[in-house]
Amino acid sequence: MRAQGYGAATKGARLGPMEFDRREVGPDDVLIDIVACGVCHSDIHQRDGDWGNDIFPMVPGHEIVGTVSEVGAGVADFSIGDRVGVGCYVDSCRECDGCTSGSEQYCSRNVPTYNGMHLDGTTPTFGGYSNRIVVDRAYVLRLPDGLDFLPAAPLLCAGITLYPPLRKFAGPDKRVAILGLGGLGHVGVRIARAMGSHVTVLSHSPGKEADALRLGADAFVCTSDRANLKPLHRSFDVIVSTLSSTFDIESYLRLLKVNGTMVLVGLPVESFTLSAGSLISAGLSLVGSMIGGVAETQEMLHFCAEHGILADVEVIDIADVNEAWERVLASDVRYRFVIDIAKSLG
Amino acid sequence: MRAQGYGAATKGARLGPMEFDRREVGPDDVLIDIVACGVCHSDIHQRDGDWGNDIFPMVPGHEIVGTVSEVGAGVADFSIGDRVGVGCYVDSCRECDGCTSGSEQYCSRNVPTYNGMHLDGTTPTFGGYSNRIVVDRAYVLRLPDGLDFLPAAPLLCAGITLYPPLRKFAGPDKRVAILGLGGLGHVGVRIARAMGSHVTVLSHSPGKEADALRLGADAFVCTSDRANLKPLHRSFDVIVSTLSSTFDIESYLRLLKVNGTMVLVGLPVESFTLSAGSLISAGLSLVGSMIGGVAETQEMLHFCAEHGILADVEVIDIADVNEAWERVLASDVRYRFVIDIAKSLG
Repeated sequence: MRAQGYGAATKGARLGPMEFDRREVGPDDVLIDIVACGVCHSDIHQRDGDWGNDIFPMVPGHEIVGTVSEVGAGVADFSIGDRVGVGCYVDSCRECDGCTSGSEQYCSRNVPTYNGMHLDGTTPTFGGYSNRIVVDRAYVLRLPDGLDFLPAAPLLCAGITLYPPLRKFAGPDKRVAILGLGGLGHVGVRIARAMGSHVTVLSHSPGKEADALRLGADAFVCTSDRANLKPLHRSFDVIVSTLSSTFDIESYLRLLKVNGTMVLVGLPVESFTLSAGSLISAGLSLVGSMIGGVAETQEMLHFCAEHGILADVEVIDIADVNEAWERVLASDVRYRFVIDIAKSLG
Repeated sequence: MRAQGYGAATKGARLGPMEFDRREVGPDDVLIDIVACGVCHSDIHQRDGDWGNDIFPMVPGHEIVGTVSEVGAGVADFSIGDRVGVGCYVDSCRECDGCTSGSEQYCSRNVPTYNGMHLDGTTPTFGGYSNRIVVDRAYVLRLPDGLDFLPAAPLLCAGITLYPPLRKFAGPDKRVAILGLGGLGHVGVRIARAMGSHVTVLSHSPGKEADALRLGADAFVCTSDRANLKPLHRSFDVIVSTLSSTFDIESYLRLLKVNGTMVLVGLPVESFTLSAGSLISAGLSLVGSMIGGVAETQEMLHFCAEHGILADVEVIDIADVNEAWERVLASDVRYRFVIDIAKSLG
């Protein structure tokens, strides 16, 4: 079927209107009329070919929410009109260790929502900067009542990036630091707070203190003056880094309590310099975490609905997406752009 | 009281006979007639002042086994004649997060068995290259029947270095790799095997294959030909690195399954170069681990007794310790020197 969207014709090109083909609805498929799609920094990286393996034309977008408008003959668990979401991937092998243990995101054949190839190896995927999408039912999430479409869209990437490590390492009586207050971090503050943790935001921007406290943080520490870190020595159970640039990781490891954990969810391009002693001397763990599995994503959405957690969003028309991207690159967004697809392309 | 031992008068000096003072037996103390003491590579590092904060004269040794010859008035749990052990530390603050959670080894006031200061801040500690030692009962381990003194001595350091991470991450159905087959690694193979794991030894010395299999490993892979690593891609649940030199950590992280764990117990001086992506792309954890808590050390000794786990040792007279140290530096020991103190100094 034909779909309308916004995409880049070639590497680095401005996004523009684009018509393209999606597969017809198969027996296990769900057709979704897209209502909104969040703008993730990774959309820009992929348009620019920063990570290699880029496929053009490219229609970005992996924070998708919408309503079901058609279901395949074999789909019993979704009905027309259901409110649903689609995250960073739309398929995986379903057989490997990752897939069978609820970690489909780590499957080596995981099919990204855009800029990927379906398992047939020949059909490219196109993302949520478009009016509709066809997705296998096993990779469609249910959007619980109480989560409005527009501010819920970023949960499909930002929310599921923060929820799994916080579920594993945070909780009541835990002291949690969120390093970096942006699209990821601001959702992390809300989730950690809802889990009952004591939350500190570590940010180099003093201007973000008011936002941090409004989001529910118990404390804000400005990291641009390194002297501020000293009183935090061995004080956190977990630090979640959302930073996308390399940082002096050892000075932050020293802020962890004995047996504490630093989780990396932000993905700097440059490598870290890390001494074994900085981990061994206090029994520390350094953990990498990338979004979540399908069931975990559904669980995250229910958790957010229960606790009233949504993203702070700035809603835009799809015609303004290139300017929005410029502002993302300048860190000039609090805290996530969401494209009102229904209004722009509906 | 006076004690006889072997020590270094100054940094880098050869060890020689030395007489020194230990405190008298206090109400909570246990006097131990030392039977044997293992030789740990860290003894040499400290004699050479490699880690700073060195105190001379220095009497090394923290793999101590012996028999109780006197107990203080307040000691109800040890009696004269009891077989006991002392590991890497003899006191700690008993109040911090580490001490109150069974991780006394990470206490910032932890008192090393030698080359440290008692909590009074003025009395230096002297180690197990000596005929007797006075230790607070709370830091004395019970040596279970069935663990002979000489081959059991290295369990107090090598054993407790490997046991906690293996207890946490190994177990039946787990595929475990031990990276490096030396004093630490050879005990690690036995412990992991006793826990029911499938054990692979990764070593750059092809000559160690027979030993690895004799120790109970299911497989041996020589790492000096990097092509041998390729079939191991994403195959281990846990890799424990006992290496004391920096290595290409990312090429080993690729050998871990999704959500797998690499534990560093060996302590290279140089830093690692580590990209966040190498952890994030498969949900991996990099964990530092240093010996164990008091209760954990006792548990390890019981586990080793139950499973007949001892170190492979070469027994020496204390007069030959300088030559033994030369051989340690040349990695010419399979797999641990133990000083027969009873025979040498008894």
